[in-house]
Amino acid sequence: MDQNQQDLFIKTVLSNWELAVKRASKFFDACSDDEFLTPIAPGKNRVVYLLGHLTAVHDRMLPVLGLGERHYPQLDELFISNPDNAITALPSIPELRSQWTAINTLLTEKLGAWTPGEWLERHTAVTAEDFAREPHRNKLNIVLNRTGHVSYHLGQLALLKK
Amino acid sequence: MDQNQQDLFIKTVLSNWELAVKRASKFFDACSDDEFLTPIAPGKNRVVYLLGHLTAVHDRMLPVLGLGERHYPQLDELFISNPDNAITALPSIPELRSQWTAINTLLTEKLGAWTPGEWLERHTAVTAEDFAREPHRNKLNIVLNRTGHVSYHLGQLALLKK
Repeated sequence: MDQNQQDLFIKTVLSNWELAVKRASKFFDACSDDEFLTPIAPGKNRVVYLLGHLTAVHDRMLPVLGLGERHYPQLDELFISNPDNAITALPSIPELRSQWTAINTLLTEKLGAWTPGEWLERHTAVTAEDFAREPHRNKLNIVLNRTGHVSYHLGQLALLKK
Repeated sequence: MDQNQQDLFIKTVLSNWELAVKRASKFFDACSDDEFLTPIAPGKNRVVYLLGHLTAVHDRMLPVLGLGERHYPQLDELFISNPDNAITALPSIPELRSQWTAINTLLTEKLGAWTPGEWLERHTAVTAEDFAREPHRNKLNIVLNRTGHVSYHLGQLALLKK
């Protein structure tokens, strides 16, 4: 694979990440405050929960990918450790929207600056020992997995479309 | 990127494809015939429709990726062109299960044999002219996109879990 092909491989992966984030952002941008409080199906997560959940999961990518400290660790208790409706005092929608946009802008910028070698480095959620045996548990794998995670919840959000 | 890194890049992409397919297969394997006829949410697609839909979309990957003729083109009318419940005479569940397994086994085998250069080739759903301008619209892009498509519907199927 020459330099050009390497760049293309990475560009294709990045464009899939960006597309998934863009689709989710488009969905959230079009939601009214009322719609944020609507569950995706009876008894299931509300849209606001999925916005906070996706933001928390993306924020957790920072340390996992060696990109520094988290920005919004307080989101975990609200949107990862606990199910929806367990905690009533959630952050405001404008605050969550702004965090969602900020974390994705930061991640996309950082990923865009990686060399091919950096994409294949160990992520911090796998031990050096496990990584020696399973070298596909690299940073690329985290980005592909989290891209799929956005799609997973996009499928649920799509149930609210008329 | 040396040979080893190239292989790793591709192995990581392939393992994400395989994982998404495996998760969906695990879900379908655990479904009773009754559960196949349950909608994922009130008024939405039934599980059997999603099984057929995913199979049809994967079958369409064959010509798009230059891997030969389709095996099950008859699925399109039932599971792509028409919404669920529009056509009452669907294939049997065992037949759909078997097609789902067969198409994924074939695709995974074919993808596993590609060289790095083949991953970056033009797919047949983009014109040569557009591909010259947008070289990331390659076969890798189709595989990443379809992996995300499985995740999208997995998110919906997960709503049926207790």
